[in-house]
Amino acid sequence: MRNILLLVSYDGTMYHGWQCQPNGITIQETLHKAVEKITNRHVKLIGGARTDAGVHAQGQGVNFTTESLIDLRSLAKGLNSLLPLDIRVHSVSEVPEGFHARYSAKSKTYVYCILTAPYNSPFHGRYAWHYPYGLDVPFMDGAIKLIVGEHDFSAFKKKDEVYRSAVRKILRARVRRRKDFIYIVLEATGFLRYMVRNIVGTLVLVGSGKITKDRFQEILESRDRQKAGPTAPAKGLFLREIQY
Amino acid sequence: MRNILLLVSYDGTMYHGWQCQPNGITIQETLHKAVEKITNRHVKLIGGARTDAGVHAQGQGVNFTTESLIDLRSLAKGLNSLLPLDIRVHSVSEVPEGFHARYSAKSKTYVYCILTAPYNSPFHGRYAWHYPYGLDVPFMDGAIKLIVGEHDFSAFKKKDEVYRSAVRKILRARVRRRKDFIYIVLEATGFLRYMVRNIVGTLVLVGSGKITKDRFQEILESRDRQKAGPTAPAKGLFLREIQY
Repeated sequence: MRNILLLVSYDGTMYHGWQCQPNGITIQETLHKAVEKITNRHVKLIGGARTDAGVHAQGQGVNFTTESLIDLRSLAKGLNSLLPLDIRVHSVSEVPEGFHARYSAKSKTYVYCILTAPYNSPFHGRYAWHYPYGLDVPFMDGAIKLIVGEHDFSAFKKKDEVYRSAVRKILRARVRRRKDFIYIVLEATGFLRYMVRNIVGTLVLVGSGKITKDRFQEILESRDRQKAGPTAPAKGLFLREIQY
Repeated sequence: MRNILLLVSYDGTMYHGWQCQPNGITIQETLHKAVEKITNRHVKLIGGARTDAGVHAQGQGVNFTTESLIDLRSLAKGLNSLLPLDIRVHSVSEVPEGFHARYSAKSKTYVYCILTAPYNSPFHGRYAWHYPYGLDVPFMDGAIKLIVGEHDFSAFKKKDEVYRSAVRKILRARVRRRKDFIYIVLEATGFLRYMVRNIVGTLVLVGSGKITKDRFQEILESRDRQKAGPTAPAKGLFLREIQY
């Protein structure tokens, strides 16, 4: 059996997230159909990250095993010809037998994009949270540095979501401005559901002067979802890369 | 009467160009409805450039005269709340009585975007011509410099389009690469229909080694549309700015 890894980009706007579910079309199911058609075999797709509805990806890792002998170039070309334009396979490689797109991941990097221009943009409106009310980027960067390392992120989890452990390890966290955009970059060994978007929603409270950096730390330490800010919109979030 | 100038950005993907026409929805008609609703009066919209179907704009100038006393801030806010997300008004100002969005223009700048990555992008696919076959940017830049100044651009006009004079004056012309993108920038006092896209289609022949720079010059001088390259797709073209 060959084990094949695809790196996939998608615009999540029109999809109900990565994972197959009864209501609404998902990325997984769309990709699954294309892979089965090209390989002419049943396959089981393993996605590296279960992105939520409306979230985008620039480097989702997806693997499957197959007895198909199709060459990798034809596989990439065939998949891209079958897939809708908002899902693109941009790399195909063969990986060792035991490789698993989720379990083999060393870390994942997400980027959240905020558009700060006074007006929204017809070109970036689908890919950024439009927040034109003024944000202090150094303040936000100071606050986000507090979450680097191992912490219990219960304060930033999805409401009512239950975890055996909500401890996750953040390897890299930063906030940068570039022209009209603010980019929040988070690399971690794992994420809770809504964790990035809840951190961003709370960071925006810091950046707009509504709460202090100390309060941000208190919220983290409280492990209480009620204390944190609102969930930032899905459309600003990108799964940038999975480090294998 | 007040004379009001709007600067407008739009994603042209879903529209049949700027100008009102019987079949299909246009930018002008969509904007017109919104302006009449907000000002509660009949208005005549004047567009600075008649962009074709599928062409985008980052700085279309549009003016109209009105007796409405609405303040400019409320006008911008109101228009953006009525308009679809793919059309945004990003500046509103009052201009002198005789100002005309088209006739008062000193020059216009268009930018054409080519995506050269081996795979298309879910995020840029609507805003660039995907051309992954190799292009020599210095060659293209050398050729485009030949059109700076006054020339008869009949070779690059739309087929069967008739002009009293096809002479236009190019003020600035350049080709630059930035990461996976090639940007072709053209500033001129005026353009023929399809002129930018026909120049780009012919430049791509130069960049891919199919014709030489000398041949490019011969094509320009021939004034014969048959000799030039194909029309580049509309989706890569942006009306960047109108200089008033």
